[in-house]
Amino acid sequence: MKTTYNQLAGQSSERINAISDAVFGVAMTLLVLEIEVPEIEGDVTEEKLIQAFLTLVPKFLVYFLSFMTAGIFWAGQSAQFRNIEKSDRNLTWINLFLLLFVSTLPFSTSFLGSHIEYKFSIFLYWLNIFFMGMGLYISWNYAYKHGFIAEDTRDIVYEPIKRRILIAQSLYLFGALLCFISPYLSISVIIAIQLNYAFAFISFK
Amino acid sequence: MKTTYNQLAGQSSERINAISDAVFGVAMTLLVLEIEVPEIEGDVTEEKLIQAFLTLVPKFLVYFLSFMTAGIFWAGQSAQFRNIEKSDRNLTWINLFLLLFVSTLPFSTSFLGSHIEYKFSIFLYWLNIFFMGMGLYISWNYAYKHGFIAEDTRDIVYEPIKRRILIAQSLYLFGALLCFISPYLSISVIIAIQLNYAFAFISFK
Amino acid sequence: MKTTYNQLAGQSSERINAISDAVFGVAMTLLVLEIEVPEIEGDVTEEKLIQAFLTLVPKFLVYFLSFMTAGIFWAGQSAQFRNIEKSDRNLTWINLFLLLFVSTLPFSTSFLGSHIEYKFSIFLYWLNIFFMGMGLYISWNYAYKHGFIAEDTRDIVYEPIKRRILIAQSLYLFGALLCFISPYLSISVIIAIQLNYAFAFISFK
Amino acid sequence: MKTTYNQLAGQSSERINAISDAVFGVAMTLLVLEIEVPEIEGDVTEEKLIQAFLTLVPKFLVYFLSFMTAGIFWAGQSAQFRNIEKSDRNLTWINLFLLLFVSTLPFSTSFLGSHIEYKFSIFLYWLNIFFMGMGLYISWNYAYKHGFIAEDTRDIVYEPIKRRILIAQSLYLFGALLCFISPYLSISVIIAIQLNYAFAFISFK
Repeated sequence: MKTTYNQLAGQSSERINAISDAVFGVAMTLLVLEIEVPEIEGDVTEEKLIQAFLTLVPKFLVYFLSFMTAGIFWAGQSAQFRNIEKSDRNLTWINLFLLLFVSTLPFSTSFLGSHIEYKFSIFLYWLNIFFMGMGLYISWNYAYKHGFIAEDTRDIVYEPIKRRILIAQSLYLFGALLCFISPYLSISVIIAIQLNYAFAFISFK
Repeated sequence: MKTTYNQLAGQSSERINAISDAVFGVAMTLLVLEIEVPEIEGDVTEEKLIQAFLTLVPKFLVYFLSFMTAGIFWAGQSAQFRNIEKSDRNLTWINLFLLLFVSTLPFSTSFLGSHIEYKFSIFLYWLNIFFMGMGLYISWNYAYKHGFIAEDTRDIVYEPIKRRILIAQSLYLFGALLCFISPYLSISVIIAIQLNYAFAFISFK
Repeated sequence: MKTTYNQLAGQSSERINAISDAVFGVAMTLLVLEIEVPEIEGDVTEEKLIQAFLTLVPKFLVYFLSFMTAGIFWAGQSAQFRNIEKSDRNLTWINLFLLLFVSTLPFSTSFLGSHIEYKFSIFLYWLNIFFMGMGLYISWNYAYKHGFIAEDTRDIVYEPIKRRILIAQSLYLFGALLCFISPYLSISVIIAIQLNYAFAFISFK
Repeated sequence: MKTTYNQLAGQSSERINAISDAVFGVAMTLLVLEIEVPEIEGDVTEEKLIQAFLTLVPKFLVYFLSFMTAGIFWAGQSAQFRNIEKSDRNLTWINLFLLLFVSTLPFSTSFLGSHIEYKFSIFLYWLNIFFMGMGLYISWNYAYKHGFIAEDTRDIVYEPIKRRILIAQSLYLFGALLCFISPYLSISVIIAIQLNYAFAFISFK
């Protein structure tokens, strides 16, 4: 049997983790470049400076939201690969698919930050989260079906991680649909979902 | 015999991988900075927002194309170094040569995105891919000739990886030459080649 | 007992270190993007070039200050995780909280660089340092209380690292409050504190 | 004896390598952001596009020069830490000092690229290289004097690596001083020195 390139490529989950940390780290840090130090017209005073900063507050909120989003998906990817022992070419590309939508996060964040009160901005932002969720979900299922998850924990970890992705994505979809009632309500609910996942309020109960 | 610096530098393939992951990760994420949130003139409406976004679609296509390009070469570099056990100063510099053209990818992508219908843009983009391919090819041959590939897999992996680089580069050249018929045909064929390598349709047959 | 996602996420301190190095590394390098090569009006001469460069000196000082700030907190995070053996979901998120304020450092640096003589700029910069300090402090205490610190060094390392964070934060607060006397005095004292921590003058005594 | 923070911080050379790879990787990739796709006035034609690209050639040359500079110092730092087994707080900060001047490289590159025919630009660029060289030199000597270099190779590796830094820095100084005859001669000689170190022509003899 001839050895093909496809059998040789992608077994290193270490490298997948390294490129993931690089892309997540850069995306998280680039997000802040959207927030520019305001130009002050006329003489600068402490009051003008404070006011100028306050106009940036919505941008900071969107920034914090996106940092949390990136953090949640980074934690999700980490949780998967702590349990994944092997890898192949397809799993590599599924993860690059996930990273593709991590790297578009600065764009959809900036779009939302500039036009926060429009349904379309929320739709784009949700779409970005949806594709990242898809990436995580396909990655996890693929790893499960191809026996890449460590055997001893395989049956313990598969369901909770899968369930979590599905529940989170359902909540995001629900939050996004609320934009038909009010964009601000929609964003608030999405932020609440993020805070829940980030700070795990439920798990403290 | 006097020990020279050249004998001491470059044996760590771990560090080559780390700097590669950093450069690939940054380049992949920087690509999206080219896509700016559009300014809307006059009153903003949902329709205007959607139209403004639609004008960005070509830029997104070029972005996806370049992310795939970076991913393909990253996967190629990974595949090589999974089999390379040792390294030296020259192999380090061959890989830095590869990374040099990874880091120019945001430029040639942006150039193509701005002037997608010109032969010269396609030529520049192809040249970028060609230099990356050269980097991979020289790296692999150098590692083979100097016995840096793990002995047990050496003869199994050398040919498939080498063949793959040559076939891919031939296809890219063919795709690029199609720009004399039509630039759009040329780009479509290059994208098709990328999709083939990224998603390995052939290997699913 | 049902295994929940929260028990499965976040045990890998290796990944926390990797994402931290990425975010710190990007933030440190992005800081310099604030310093733009000056445009020279009229004919360029050596004298004009030197003068143009000299106008950038305050920006370079603020840049060096921020690089040191990032370095100090990176060294602090490293010192913690050299002693932390285990991790969980909450510790992961505490560290992401720290990284959030690492990634805002380019903004608060740029704000300070643009309006160096105002109390509010110093307040913002101090606030950024304060949140990073909070991140380090909560992380260390959490790790201690949950038994994540290596047992053999646990009681030796806990107090010195904790004390150091508290002393440093007290000094920063003192330095920041000096802005009510003079902003320049305030910044000079903060720089002196940083230099002390970076170069450990005290430890050379 | 009381354990102080300084004894606890900085023993991990692994983390020094990780932050170094991140800073070098980002700096190498950011360099290309200086090169912007040219705006074409009037109708775009293939000829205009080629001409616009040709005006960028000097910027590309400076870019390649700086990528090589970064690569040379990265290879130098790697060569040191392949031999360094232990680390402490001071060695960490010496390496952060080196990284500080890695991160200013995009600035001094951009300065040189904008004003290539002036002595002051060459002086700034040389100064940047000089500080990086100082960082490498101090790091290596410090590691040697404090017994951080692996004992078995210590006496073999110390002199060649030290000598190399001193020779390289002497050559750079010589190259920079040539700017009093002609800036272009100066840059050409610096590039020749870089090429020599990058491609190790001498070692092929």
